[in-house]
Amino acid sequence: MSVAISAHRLAAALVPPVGVAYRDLADQIRLLIVDGRITAGARLPSERELAAATGLSRTTTARVYAELRDAGLLLSRRGSGSIVCVPFAESSASSLIVTPEDDAGIAMTYAAPVAPAGLGRAFENAIARLPGLLSTTGYLPDGLPVLREMLAARYEERGLPTSPDQIIVTSGALGALSLIARTFVEQGDRVLVEAVSYPHAHEAFTTSGARLSTLPVVQHGPWDVETAVDMLASSRHRAAYLIPDFHNPTSAVMPEAAREALARAMRRAGTLAVIDESQRDVNLDGVELPPSFGTFDRDAMLVDSASKTFWGGLRVGWIRAPRDLVMPLVQARMTHDLGTAAFEQLVFAEVLQDPEPVLTSALNGFRTQRDHLVDLLATHLPDLAVSPPAGGLSIWAGLPDHNSTRLVAAAREHGLLLTPGPRFFSGAPVAGEAHLRLPYTQAPAVLEDAVHRLAKAYEGRRADDAPDGPRLDLIA
Amino acid sequence: MSVAISAHRLAAALVPPVGVAYRDLADQIRLLIVDGRITAGARLPSERELAAATGLSRTTTARVYAELRDAGLLLSRRGSGSIVCVPFAESSASSLIVTPEDDAGIAMTYAAPVAPAGLGRAFENAIARLPGLLSTTGYLPDGLPVLREMLAARYEERGLPTSPDQIIVTSGALGALSLIARTFVEQGDRVLVEAVSYPHAHEAFTTSGARLSTLPVVQHGPWDVETAVDMLASSRHRAAYLIPDFHNPTSAVMPEAAREALARAMRRAGTLAVIDESQRDVNLDGVELPPSFGTFDRDAMLVDSASKTFWGGLRVGWIRAPRDLVMPLVQARMTHDLGTAAFEQLVFAEVLQDPEPVLTSALNGFRTQRDHLVDLLATHLPDLAVSPPAGGLSIWAGLPDHNSTRLVAAAREHGLLLTPGPRFFSGAPVAGEAHLRLPYTQAPAVLEDAVHRLAKAYEGRRADDAPDGPRLDLIA
Repeated sequence: MSVAISAHRLAAALVPPVGVAYRDLADQIRLLIVDGRITAGARLPSERELAAATGLSRTTTARVYAELRDAGLLLSRRGSGSIVCVPFAESSASSLIVTPEDDAGIAMTYAAPVAPAGLGRAFENAIARLPGLLSTTGYLPDGLPVLREMLAARYEERGLPTSPDQIIVTSGALGALSLIARTFVEQGDRVLVEAVSYPHAHEAFTTSGARLSTLPVVQHGPWDVETAVDMLASSRHRAAYLIPDFHNPTSAVMPEAAREALARAMRRAGTLAVIDESQRDVNLDGVELPPSFGTFDRDAMLVDSASKTFWGGLRVGWIRAPRDLVMPLVQARMTHDLGTAAFEQLVFAEVLQDPEPVLTSALNGFRTQRDHLVDLLATHLPDLAVSPPAGGLSIWAGLPDHNSTRLVAAAREHGLLLTPGPRFFSGAPVAGEAHLRLPYTQAPAVLEDAVHRLAKAYEGRRADDAPDGPRLDLIA
Repeated sequence: MSVAISAHRLAAALVPPVGVAYRDLADQIRLLIVDGRITAGARLPSERELAAATGLSRTTTARVYAELRDAGLLLSRRGSGSIVCVPFAESSASSLIVTPEDDAGIAMTYAAPVAPAGLGRAFENAIARLPGLLSTTGYLPDGLPVLREMLAARYEERGLPTSPDQIIVTSGALGALSLIARTFVEQGDRVLVEAVSYPHAHEAFTTSGARLSTLPVVQHGPWDVETAVDMLASSRHRAAYLIPDFHNPTSAVMPEAAREALARAMRRAGTLAVIDESQRDVNLDGVELPPSFGTFDRDAMLVDSASKTFWGGLRVGWIRAPRDLVMPLVQARMTHDLGTAAFEQLVFAEVLQDPEPVLTSALNGFRTQRDHLVDLLATHLPDLAVSPPAGGLSIWAGLPDHNSTRLVAAAREHGLLLTPGPRFFSGAPVAGEAHLRLPYTQAPAVLEDAVHRLAKAYEGRRADDAPDGPRLDLIA
């Protein structure tokens, strides 16, 4: 149950102390805990091991741990080591998430919108079709037939011949990735991933036992194609997980030549391409995207969802799988859930009968909000490097001070929740300090309030005071 | 990706051949494949290994494999052994499930009802409360607050003081069990289970790396308490998974004294009790049940769902967890899904505002259907040993010939899908041949048709012909 954090790993996540060494280091570890990078129940290395790995004295590391114990963040017991404990006796997990409804603060850890106009209508229309559904057992391990047909037709329209039996409806895109990982990735298998990416997806692979090999970030996006081709050729990779369309969090789009080259390399290496297309339709400026990765690799697993374009509350995602991999996926699913909620699938099928009005309304909203956030940042936080993205749901802002974690901790004291840059670099905990993801899925007034809070945090003091308790590490 | 089946395991699953040895053995292995006990992609032992493990000649085992190859069920390649392949080039996973809507047959692999009267009304009422939900992001990693409050109140009514922050809403009971297994069970951990039980639950534990220790079945139910207490005391068990209330599939109820003794033994051993209460409310004859297992072990994880009492299509389950284990569960969930569908939770909250009418309607239906099935079996299949259960959703019928697998294969040729008894004995593939689970969740007319088909299969010839293709192994 308890995850051991090695001294080497902890030392690598710490930067040389400023001021009083033990206090600064305790502060750094506290930030790692508060940001969810060290989780409750983890076992820290012994004071002796940490001293050896950092070059600090044993006295210093002992004082660091004593500070953490005093703050109630560490429980040291003879024989069982020092366990990270997260005190939340009175609070529920829910209360740790600041939602937009909560007046006390603003959550910008979600790049997830409220429902667009027209979705409520789809729910109402679906009620009319409910009786047919209620007269079945409601178990749909691969999905509602009518929805599978509509999703297959969408791929056909994109130039990807697809039959309905290649579609598996899942619990969101994350449910799809987790299912793929559980079905095809075994303990010790290598999986190629982008160095910067959506962290819960990487966790879905690592909890299935994957070892991640990360692709270096290059100038124009998170895909160093030459290195990737070499990596695929030189060591066996079971799968590769990529977000080629409005990549999360950078919003980069993979060029067509890169798609071709990577697809070829994966086919040659027998590597399963797992392609996240959940932001492909969040195309704010109507830019012409290269064809779907699936047109270059017909055997790719394409993952998509209704959460980003329509509404997260639907929890409807899907996989377009090669025909011979459908049955293993559906069978593997049976040990985790017996299908996606039936009515939500009916609602989404209603939306897809005429998606344009809902989609247009959603994209118009995002565009206005993006432009507003870009203007606000230019005015109130001119130090940040901001390139307005053509699609996706967030700005990947550059921080001149490379202090993402500290800035996030300070913002939190102003009632603004953000995800620190390093959280998107799962393979390298010290990378990412130069960036901050700023989603623009909130209403303009909320964005204004958020930027004011962030500006105060940016101008203000360092986050010397302990933030008041942990938060749930949910990123969307 | 390919699971190797050892010669020892395969030999243990086979019974001594009747008639032409190689043909009978090929037939036995075909049944194991068709019933999903050997899955597609599995690697069978070599002909030589199988010969050594069974005592048969090498010539015989070679002919067995040749038969299977001819039937298109085995692919033998030099160097990579014999891989089970399941031919379904043209069919989709869906088409492999015979649902009640499918005129071609009757599925009795589900102990899952259609929606009861009153549920449609709850959907309609929930629409009125939808706008408030649509104005949020819809991500509810631990559940809709109003639903968590109502579920906590239900436990209070049962004498179990519970606060809403102890409730986590999941994707059905299986989603709950899978989450508990992923969070608390590590590779190699022992988990105590009933020898006969709901198979997907056991699979949720084994896919998390658990080694299952099985509790012997005794005269009055699947709980040999004395043996269990010894097992808990003598070797470390991380968790125990039990279904004390209208146990699936036997419908047995664990006596109060057994609950006390097991709870005490688990507390003493530091074993996490995972208690499946999803059939507790399916109390057809209004028998007085002992108090919830949770009253004897306050630290038990109680798992429940709306699927059995209300409707499987809701896909709403939940966990009542000890307070300090809530956060690890919710955090672990984030790598697999970001929450249960929001609207379904609202619908279930509507149902719980006044559950009695819906529950009464559901239980009345089940009672009528149970009585009808008992009568039908007495008339048309008097050989079967049937004790009408006081609760739950199926009859656990005794078969005098101990031929459950063959009977199920024969029934399938008559268009009736059933789950063979051994499928409920995950730890011992040869056990269970003396039983057949017969759910009574279908309408009386369907039950009549089903019993006629079953009677024909029972009277009729042995299943000498190969059943036409595999089916998806979904059990509910």
